[in-house]
Amino acid sequence: MNVKNEIGVQALKWTGSSLQVLDQRLLPEQVSYHEYRDAGGIAEAIKVMQVRGAPAIGIAAAYAVALSVMRHCQDGAADWRVEVEHDFEALAASRPTAVNLFWALDKMRQALDYENVDPVASAVATAEQIHDDDLEGNLRMGELGAEVLGDANSVMTHCNAGALATGGYGTALGVIRSAHRRGLKRVYACETRPWLQGARLTVWELAQDGIEATLIADSAAAWLMKNGKLDWVVVGADRIAANGDVANKIGTYSLAVLAKQHGVKMMVVAPMSTIDFAIETGDGIEIEQRNQAELLPDCYLREDSLVHAWNPVFDVTPAELITAIVTERGVVMNPAQQGGVRSLKT
Amino acid sequence: MNVKNEIGVQALKWTGSSLQVLDQRLLPEQVSYHEYRDAGGIAEAIKVMQVRGAPAIGIAAAYAVALSVMRHCQDGAADWRVEVEHDFEALAASRPTAVNLFWALDKMRQALDYENVDPVASAVATAEQIHDDDLEGNLRMGELGAEVLGDANSVMTHCNAGALATGGYGTALGVIRSAHRRGLKRVYACETRPWLQGARLTVWELAQDGIEATLIADSAAAWLMKNGKLDWVVVGADRIAANGDVANKIGTYSLAVLAKQHGVKMMVVAPMSTIDFAIETGDGIEIEQRNQAELLPDCYLREDSLVHAWNPVFDVTPAELITAIVTERGVVMNPAQQGGVRSLKT
Repeated sequence: MNVKNEIGVQALKWTGSSLQVLDQRLLPEQVSYHEYRDAGGIAEAIKVMQVRGAPAIGIAAAYAVALSVMRHCQDGAADWRVEVEHDFEALAASRPTAVNLFWALDKMRQALDYENVDPVASAVATAEQIHDDDLEGNLRMGELGAEVLGDANSVMTHCNAGALATGGYGTALGVIRSAHRRGLKRVYACETRPWLQGARLTVWELAQDGIEATLIADSAAAWLMKNGKLDWVVVGADRIAANGDVANKIGTYSLAVLAKQHGVKMMVVAPMSTIDFAIETGDGIEIEQRNQAELLPDCYLREDSLVHAWNPVFDVTPAELITAIVTERGVVMNPAQQGGVRSLKT
Repeated sequence: MNVKNEIGVQALKWTGSSLQVLDQRLLPEQVSYHEYRDAGGIAEAIKVMQVRGAPAIGIAAAYAVALSVMRHCQDGAADWRVEVEHDFEALAASRPTAVNLFWALDKMRQALDYENVDPVASAVATAEQIHDDDLEGNLRMGELGAEVLGDANSVMTHCNAGALATGGYGTALGVIRSAHRRGLKRVYACETRPWLQGARLTVWELAQDGIEATLIADSAAAWLMKNGKLDWVVVGADRIAANGDVANKIGTYSLAVLAKQHGVKMMVVAPMSTIDFAIETGDGIEIEQRNQAELLPDCYLREDSLVHAWNPVFDVTPAELITAIVTERGVVMNPAQQGGVRSLKT
């Protein structure tokens, strides 16, 4: 099936010879796509967060490699692999925390390693497959996660783990979409400082699909829980360690601690490509620090300023605080009691 | 002593015939005072948060009453009390949560109730006394709180409970100022959505006094605690119930729950005028809900929008989560074990 046709919001559109990237920095005021025909431009688009979200970054990087191969291999140049290698490096350097990026680059490298295949055809087919698989995986996770939510009335999400962060449909928002069809009543979105993915992307994306959403300040989440208005927190992930520890947007750890204290359950929804079996625990995950300017008023950006900012954009939630990890391959309930997510490994 | 001369940052300047109010909405980019000669203007300044912070709101309201009496009583009009009563009502309606506002209005009403006193002189003297007492109380709380912090290395504060929120020196920031003189090493400030008092006011105010500060997103506080970088959270209060429950800026409850989980201590610093002995527990405190527009992008403010916001600007922290409540009359350690703050009542 061509599931892409079912999906309203699309962060990435592949034309066959270019990648159209929705500039998420301009949402919700403006829906504007940039068209890229080279890998360098896409690496930059990832770095400046025109495209963001772990799975979408992976898909964009895959198409970027395909474009690189199309460009450098087309004229039969003997050294095309050297040129493509430069692009691999630029893409790998674009964002450090999301493991899907490295997973997608590995897939693309494998696609180019076969003898007797047309490198262009192989690269394009692999990138398209990564995209299709992501979307189908999201639809599957949506059903599995909605099943776990059961008759929950009210969920909260953080950041944007939606269609905009993936090949379509979304991970956490995929579950929320599926649960909404089954009768989920209320969706709260944390605005998610400093980048406001919740305020700018998540509520926009939900409204596009006719789903009502209530935005809250990140620091109001505990008070909402205290007032008994929440059943589940449902989030995505940027990297999951073998023991079930989850790196995700800064604030996720905070929500997980608060959820535990208030008897609210915690669900992480992510494709298998987010799981980094090479990393035993969350301690091994590199946490990206972004620019102070995302937090500081301009007047504090001078060299001699007494005012600084600490701006880690991810944190690590220990498996003990997680009720369910949902992947397209299945659900791990209470991962800390199951020895992490190792049971999902083929 | 005229302690006001010792203080750099001043939110309110009384000239004898007008109140100059620092427009805190323009900080840190612009330091600009508006001059008010009538109570209505000051009530509006409180409502739109040109002046904010529980003690500063009380002081501004006291001067507003003084200006009202000066205006309406000056020409010996028989019905001046009726006019002044209108201003009392407008001031009482300006912000609901801060009890200091009502406390200051009561004080001013008492000052006008005496026979055989010049109402103008009495009102002005009472307002000035409220201001002076607040400042001296802050200096005293600064010392008491710093004593409790002992040799703590690292504290975090939320919102702005500083000179800008008081008659000068500050409550939570007063303690931090005093502790800094004794060797406190690191001060973290939560940016404090939606109004960004931390990013715009607290770090500005600290830098004015030569104190280095590190700004963080509200949702990064838990991760900072997890990384073992924090000894105390130090905040102000908008209202304290007799049992020691504390209403303060939204996010305070969240920090208190997280602090408890991470072995970080929690200090609340507030003048006696913040304690509402008439309210038994935090359940009796009205929580102000502010406009959705403080959180929502403009495009969601339409009537038919599917996107809403929940914007409580305060929350209530139960006494059990508080390590110390510091007032100018003394410190209550572990208020939940002491039957609240009743021991402070004269």
